[in-house]
Amino acid sequence: MQQVLAYVAKKQYFCSRKSEKMANTFGDKWSFTSFGESHGAAIGGVLDGVPAGIAIDVELIRQELKRRSEGGSSRALREPDEVEWLSGVLDGVTLGTPIAFIIRNKDARPEDYEDLKHTYRVGHADKVYEQKYGIRDWRGGGRASARETAARVVAGCMAKQELSAKGVAIHAQLVQVGAEKDPAKFAETIAAYQSEGDSIGGIIECRINGLPVGTGEPIFDKLQAHLAFAVMSINACKGFEYGAGFGGVTEPGSAINGISGGISGGIADGTEIVYRCVFKPTPSTSKAGVKGRHDACVAVRAVPVVEAMTALALVQFL
Amino acid sequence: MQQVLAYVAKKQYFCSRKSEKMANTFGDKWSFTSFGESHGAAIGGVLDGVPAGIAIDVELIRQELKRRSEGGSSRALREPDEVEWLSGVLDGVTLGTPIAFIIRNKDARPEDYEDLKHTYRVGHADKVYEQKYGIRDWRGGGRASARETAARVVAGCMAKQELSAKGVAIHAQLVQVGAEKDPAKFAETIAAYQSEGDSIGGIIECRINGLPVGTGEPIFDKLQAHLAFAVMSINACKGFEYGAGFGGVTEPGSAINGISGGISGGIADGTEIVYRCVFKPTPSTSKAGVKGRHDACVAVRAVPVVEAMTALALVQFL
Amino acid sequence: MQQVLAYVAKKQYFCSRKSEKMANTFGDKWSFTSFGESHGAAIGGVLDGVPAGIAIDVELIRQELKRRSEGGSSRALREPDEVEWLSGVLDGVTLGTPIAFIIRNKDARPEDYEDLKHTYRVGHADKVYEQKYGIRDWRGGGRASARETAARVVAGCMAKQELSAKGVAIHAQLVQVGAEKDPAKFAETIAAYQSEGDSIGGIIECRINGLPVGTGEPIFDKLQAHLAFAVMSINACKGFEYGAGFGGVTEPGSAINGISGGISGGIADGTEIVYRCVFKPTPSTSKAGVKGRHDACVAVRAVPVVEAMTALALVQFL
Amino acid sequence: MQQVLAYVAKKQYFCSRKSEKMANTFGDKWSFTSFGESHGAAIGGVLDGVPAGIAIDVELIRQELKRRSEGGSSRALREPDEVEWLSGVLDGVTLGTPIAFIIRNKDARPEDYEDLKHTYRVGHADKVYEQKYGIRDWRGGGRASARETAARVVAGCMAKQELSAKGVAIHAQLVQVGAEKDPAKFAETIAAYQSEGDSIGGIIECRINGLPVGTGEPIFDKLQAHLAFAVMSINACKGFEYGAGFGGVTEPGSAINGISGGISGGIADGTEIVYRCVFKPTPSTSKAGVKGRHDACVAVRAVPVVEAMTALALVQFL
Repeated sequence: MQQVLAYVAKKQYFCSRKSEKMANTFGDKWSFTSFGESHGAAIGGVLDGVPAGIAIDVELIRQELKRRSEGGSSRALREPDEVEWLSGVLDGVTLGTPIAFIIRNKDARPEDYEDLKHTYRVGHADKVYEQKYGIRDWRGGGRASARETAARVVAGCMAKQELSAKGVAIHAQLVQVGAEKDPAKFAETIAAYQSEGDSIGGIIECRINGLPVGTGEPIFDKLQAHLAFAVMSINACKGFEYGAGFGGVTEPGSAINGISGGISGGIADGTEIVYRCVFKPTPSTSKAGVKGRHDACVAVRAVPVVEAMTALALVQFL
Repeated sequence: MQQVLAYVAKKQYFCSRKSEKMANTFGDKWSFTSFGESHGAAIGGVLDGVPAGIAIDVELIRQELKRRSEGGSSRALREPDEVEWLSGVLDGVTLGTPIAFIIRNKDARPEDYEDLKHTYRVGHADKVYEQKYGIRDWRGGGRASARETAARVVAGCMAKQELSAKGVAIHAQLVQVGAEKDPAKFAETIAAYQSEGDSIGGIIECRINGLPVGTGEPIFDKLQAHLAFAVMSINACKGFEYGAGFGGVTEPGSAINGISGGISGGIADGTEIVYRCVFKPTPSTSKAGVKGRHDACVAVRAVPVVEAMTALALVQFL
Repeated sequence: MQQVLAYVAKKQYFCSRKSEKMANTFGDKWSFTSFGESHGAAIGGVLDGVPAGIAIDVELIRQELKRRSEGGSSRALREPDEVEWLSGVLDGVTLGTPIAFIIRNKDARPEDYEDLKHTYRVGHADKVYEQKYGIRDWRGGGRASARETAARVVAGCMAKQELSAKGVAIHAQLVQVGAEKDPAKFAETIAAYQSEGDSIGGIIECRINGLPVGTGEPIFDKLQAHLAFAVMSINACKGFEYGAGFGGVTEPGSAINGISGGISGGIADGTEIVYRCVFKPTPSTSKAGVKGRHDACVAVRAVPVVEAMTALALVQFL
Repeated sequence: MQQVLAYVAKKQYFCSRKSEKMANTFGDKWSFTSFGESHGAAIGGVLDGVPAGIAIDVELIRQELKRRSEGGSSRALREPDEVEWLSGVLDGVTLGTPIAFIIRNKDARPEDYEDLKHTYRVGHADKVYEQKYGIRDWRGGGRASARETAARVVAGCMAKQELSAKGVAIHAQLVQVGAEKDPAKFAETIAAYQSEGDSIGGIIECRINGLPVGTGEPIFDKLQAHLAFAVMSINACKGFEYGAGFGGVTEPGSAINGISGGISGGIADGTEIVYRCVFKPTPSTSKAGVKGRHDACVAVRAVPVVEAMTALALVQFL
């Protein structure tokens, strides 16, 4: 501890014990608080506001975690994430009390990251974190790690289940990798970049059906603003568009007035909502000299996270 | 009133007096509440959280309102918006109490909109509003009107002033109209669409300089998520991107790792922040059979609104 | 303005432009934002979250304002407060949009308060305000004035109307003045203190009937915690108790277990809710050398404010 | 699970899957989320907003938990609560990330409570919980159990530590048990009620010193309103008063104008803050036919909880 204190003391002109809200809570109806560092004891979350009497689909959560964890990458072999339920659930049914859950960080391999202790990874938030907090948990990115999204997937899965019970379906899929738009060729495109020790970005499209007409609010809390907020909070996401989006800029009003993207004046109009978001290539590549496990295209594993955040955004309005 | 009550009674299977939050408040530090219908007595706002002792730059506010009101369009001749300050300011200096202001709707011309009483405007939120609230203020779009953004400009201007005093500069400009990217040709491009009774979209780019390193939060309240939320809450905005954005999808990580867009891990990294947002063409065109005053390119007048919302988003973090 | 700026400059070691949230908003469903200084242009408020289609009972609001303004005191002769509705209401019926209203400060008599410009009133918040904000609107207490409660009464009246429509009745009354518990003798008790240039406290009891079983939340947002919060936010209120209250401390559990005060575990149990609150004597008395108009017992005029705050607290739960 | 689902199905006319916010979060700067049922796997909490670089005083937390757990009662012999830190702390020093902790429910003895499965405990919230949620975790009161306050003590202890570092001292003590005001006689007074299988209430006084002048807000978020809110959220608390309180009602203004109770106009005035709160006798007594372990005077064990909630309320303002 002396060492840590000394470290902190040295840096405290940066943080000077200033209170900093980490803003780890999302939503005010189904209020989700996320916690945990990637290589600490556990990551997890508390989901408050879930009604009593819902039978949690534990198997669906397991599948979604697997989908997030494996993507199409070589990580498939590692031990799956296991959710430990601490509260809010009795015999698999919600009690109406806050649902707390954790995922133990079983396969922490800090030795992979020891080299990073005295360096900053290019394109990562390591440096800015240290500047902000005056202290840095250098082990695997600490709190900034993509591992934090596993907790989002668990909470989002419960939201998705509730939405599904009310007839709302959310479906996200990868529609572009680099310049490639044919899904049949995504795997080989990614493999090509990976073999070069490089990485590539991707675009995910998300379709929402069955949302009741009138969902959303007209001024600041427009439905599209909340979807953008939710999706832009995912690591590596660089843009959000819906309806005609950026591409629509070249079309005259007479041609595209009919394309609402499912939202009119901030409010769902009863038609399918379609939005797209773009993920940048990971900066952690062997080309960039970073050891450890890396995805060549983080967009692949982002798909269930996009669905989760969409569900968490929408469930606030129901 | 009988007529209105009857109207409401007939429609109340829609609203059934259900409590609906309109969500007219933005921000939790400089908390801005907007109110007013476009053709009611007044629009206005309350800005709470502004420190005591700031001399309000009333002239700057007047200029910004003019910029919003006139844009490059033919609306230049109408009477300018005048701000009436109700509270929070004594002899032009803030008291630390909530600042309430109103702009009277002097030039209301409800007769232009009387035709719309029994119809829905294509591409507008009229229909979805009536479905949601069971009642509709048909006069000029009521609350959904772009006129509401005048209150945003007033509040945003105070935020911009405070940011400026802390060395933060915000500058937005139109960078594309239709396919045209040369600013010298924007006016004629717009005029061409207007002469055909049509409309066209535009892209605004916003640059933020001087934001202290460390501004923003790493998980849900990422700086880019808040900027996206603020900007996507502006009428007609269909997309938000920063850094390499959507265009970056075709670039390998090795090529674009250095482009942070000024934000790393949700936190300002000290470099210039650059983001872009796209505005769709207005659906109110004479081609679409809508009478009244219309802009051929709403993106022109959106520029000061984009700056205002950016300022309101950023001031929450200081 | 120079004078004000100089004044501010001199004091700015106190405020140093530090952002201070004034916290002028109450509630998150029916969100009420209050604004206005007692002798500025106007006081007023914005009530957001009110459903569309409610016919506002303007006459009831007028009566409640009169009740607050006159109490049993000699103030009865002054001109009544008049509410100007700025938005959210069309032909007397709510639109579902934020309801903004103002009350002009017609009978401002700053000359009564000019003496106070260079002094602090004993028992008032003048001094602490100046210490906090580095600037003080000395005219009649500025924002801290009891006049601010007029806006609460207007908003509370709308909440009370909605509660009433749902079968919830709120009734507050003065039950003690000094040592006197016989309502028939309150007027003469107060007159006796007033004739001596002194003042006296009072206890108000509030009864709530018809609240649905289950209203309230079990942990932090207990119903009694929210009622206490609402009532303790009224100027001069020094205590809150419900059920057996402080007097119950001498009774064994076997004697008072049945007295729930209408709330069990933070949640309404379907029986009448009874709470009491105490108001201190006003410190503004001629005995204390303060000129201007003063009540000998502020508890009298606090009764409609207690009802208003109770209604605003309860309407958040419906 | 079938049994639980059937149980829920039978009761679902009560809850009908209606979204119910449990409101398990306290504070918006140091945001504390509490979770856990008394006889589930664990209780715990997440404390978000704590700055980086604070060395947590784990021993102080242990002592406070013991103080809460044992009070002066016969419970002293049971195994102490042990805190497991899941995140936000590295080598005993805070990281600036959310601090998650749990306390396992080691000595759960559900058999003591099995009898209660088909009955409601008098004076407890069992019945109203079932009416509200349509499901009840009958094991020891579930979420409503006083055990939940252990998590408050852990979080409050961290807040107290931060306040202490800033010169703010909080000291609560029992000042009355039944009619007894001599601390030397509290133990025997309680023992007398216990020996009769009965229970008795108590009054706790809390003194706050060192709070900076200006702490608090003048309108809705008055310091006394937040203290009342925090304290009234503790189980069994029936009243809150500060300064002259209820007793001051019989004193004329001329006599008590000087007693501010440390708060003026909602804002700390730099003098000692003194408030009192009253706790009712526990309804769980052997006289009332309830088996299991019970305190004759819950106010004893409430003292550290009162300090914890006071600290959590105050830390939001710093």
